[in-house]
Amino acid sequence: MTKKICLTGIKPTGTPHLGNYIGMIRPALELAEKENHEAYYFIADYHAIITVHDKKKLEGFIHEVAASWLALGLNPSTTTLYLQSHIPEITELAWILSCVTPKGLLNRAHAYKAALDINETEKRDPDYGVNLGLYNYPVLMASDILFIKAHYVPVGSDQIQHIEIARDIAKSFNHKFGNILRLPEAMIQEKTKLVPGTDGRKMSKSYGNIIPLFLSEKKLRKEIMKIPTDSLAPSAPKNPDSSFIFQLFEHFGSESEVNDLRAAYEAGISWGDAKQQLFEKLNSALAKPREKYEDFLANPFKIKEVLEESALRIRPKAKALLNEIKEALGLQPF
Amino acid sequence: MTKKICLTGIKPTGTPHLGNYIGMIRPALELAEKENHEAYYFIADYHAIITVHDKKKLEGFIHEVAASWLALGLNPSTTTLYLQSHIPEITELAWILSCVTPKGLLNRAHAYKAALDINETEKRDPDYGVNLGLYNYPVLMASDILFIKAHYVPVGSDQIQHIEIARDIAKSFNHKFGNILRLPEAMIQEKTKLVPGTDGRKMSKSYGNIIPLFLSEKKLRKEIMKIPTDSLAPSAPKNPDSSFIFQLFEHFGSESEVNDLRAAYEAGISWGDAKQQLFEKLNSALAKPREKYEDFLANPFKIKEVLEESALRIRPKAKALLNEIKEALGLQPF
Repeated sequence: MTKKICLTGIKPTGTPHLGNYIGMIRPALELAEKENHEAYYFIADYHAIITVHDKKKLEGFIHEVAASWLALGLNPSTTTLYLQSHIPEITELAWILSCVTPKGLLNRAHAYKAALDINETEKRDPDYGVNLGLYNYPVLMASDILFIKAHYVPVGSDQIQHIEIARDIAKSFNHKFGNILRLPEAMIQEKTKLVPGTDGRKMSKSYGNIIPLFLSEKKLRKEIMKIPTDSLAPSAPKNPDSSFIFQLFEHFGSESEVNDLRAAYEAGISWGDAKQQLFEKLNSALAKPREKYEDFLANPFKIKEVLEESALRIRPKAKALLNEIKEALGLQPF
Repeated sequence: MTKKICLTGIKPTGTPHLGNYIGMIRPALELAEKENHEAYYFIADYHAIITVHDKKKLEGFIHEVAASWLALGLNPSTTTLYLQSHIPEITELAWILSCVTPKGLLNRAHAYKAALDINETEKRDPDYGVNLGLYNYPVLMASDILFIKAHYVPVGSDQIQHIEIARDIAKSFNHKFGNILRLPEAMIQEKTKLVPGTDGRKMSKSYGNIIPLFLSEKKLRKEIMKIPTDSLAPSAPKNPDSSFIFQLFEHFGSESEVNDLRAAYEAGISWGDAKQQLFEKLNSALAKPREKYEDFLANPFKIKEVLEESALRIRPKAKALLNEIKEALGLQPF
């Protein structure tokens, strides 16, 4: 039975936080361990440069993202963790794909439409502040998926359009040049329960409410103690389901631990004690990964080695597919 | 004294014709022979796939274009003749450049505006029939020019915009990431006298009035004899300057030969004789190149060898520049 190729990418545009871990990294790591699955996870640095134009920041984010995956248990000998820009075949294929992509398809892409909407509201030129990378990125993303012949791409429901665009482009290519590209399928992720940030809204970089994954023990405690709460008396019963301290705990505690905390809420628990329980849970879950993470960051050559080995593993396949594509077009593979 | 790098590209979208030779190939070959000039001439196959979606045709055009340059005297040991798609650094750099290119810049590019105009006239969606390659090609062209650090790009006056766009993008990149990219300069070609096609209009594929460069002697004669003329009597004096038989002759005859033919026109020459003189002139100029051309086409491995050697010569430089660029962005060269 052929293995199913699963692919996912993470943009190095910020320090990985608890929301990234719960919503994306953890399920991806579970998927990678499934039988008959071959996982390719990449750091989308060529997507990051659409917005990050700061050498030090980008270098840092790339290291932090790579170190996070490795620290959290990605096994680089079975799951290929790579840097997008190490695979030049991806941008090459993106150009080829752009020549079979109707421009109109990109006018309908969410990120570009969002920019258009803002500019309309602000009564500015429709393309104000839009760089070409932002406009073209769905084609780069199609190439990300198609070059490795991915079967499945785990996505949240807000990213289904990316897969649809990749499929449309692949169909258009195959229609003209033969059945070369595999049509990928979106693997819609079961809705993970909301991961709340420190203000109760979804944890997101853009809300400034994140808890970074690998804070020191001291800072992690501080972040958790800062979570705002209401003024109910310590002994008053509390509703666990409206408490994002509880909601965060749920993502890490075992079933019985969660039930115990729920009972404590209903019996009356002080916010300080609830926070302490959350802190202890998180801290024990993250202590070992944190150590590994620090070790990777202190020894970037270890990250470099993993990423470069992955590139060496992938490129021959990428090149073989690209050559097949070039042959079909009438170009001269070399 | 550092040599000046000159770059030009030719799109393999048709069989090379007399107009290409006179207007572009011949001056480029002269330029390549100048002291202190280092010439890089490329076959723009990644531009061709914007419009040519036919394997056999594209293969043929690429061979014909390469064979033409070589047959007409390009010396591959001093002038680097290469295939664009053999240099993956070009599409990679194009992606990077797209991330510092305001989308609005491309809305103003001539080729896209022409498509918009037609769609407006036809009352269609503005982007009807436009593929993304057509929209993005000025950025690929900027990369074509910038990756080799070209000093000069010989262009006709209708192509100045391409160089301006390349300069704008390079400035925007340098402003953000340091002075890495060389700003190219357009080398406006002295207006070569119009090269008329068989119907008197400018010789152009799109008018269907071309005379291919390497017809057999028999077919060349036939093409020339087909040129329409008026019904002046054979002995009547004729105006050389309104005759495109004469105009074509001017591009190949020596000064004294041209003067002689001018005198013959003014004294009265039959159209048949004028055509015969043009045929003989062209045929003698093209006989040797034609032989070489046929030889190259019959031995495509000779073309392959030239193109692949060029790629091997260029890629280390391309890679070095790309690595410098990646360092500046905070990516990880590998």
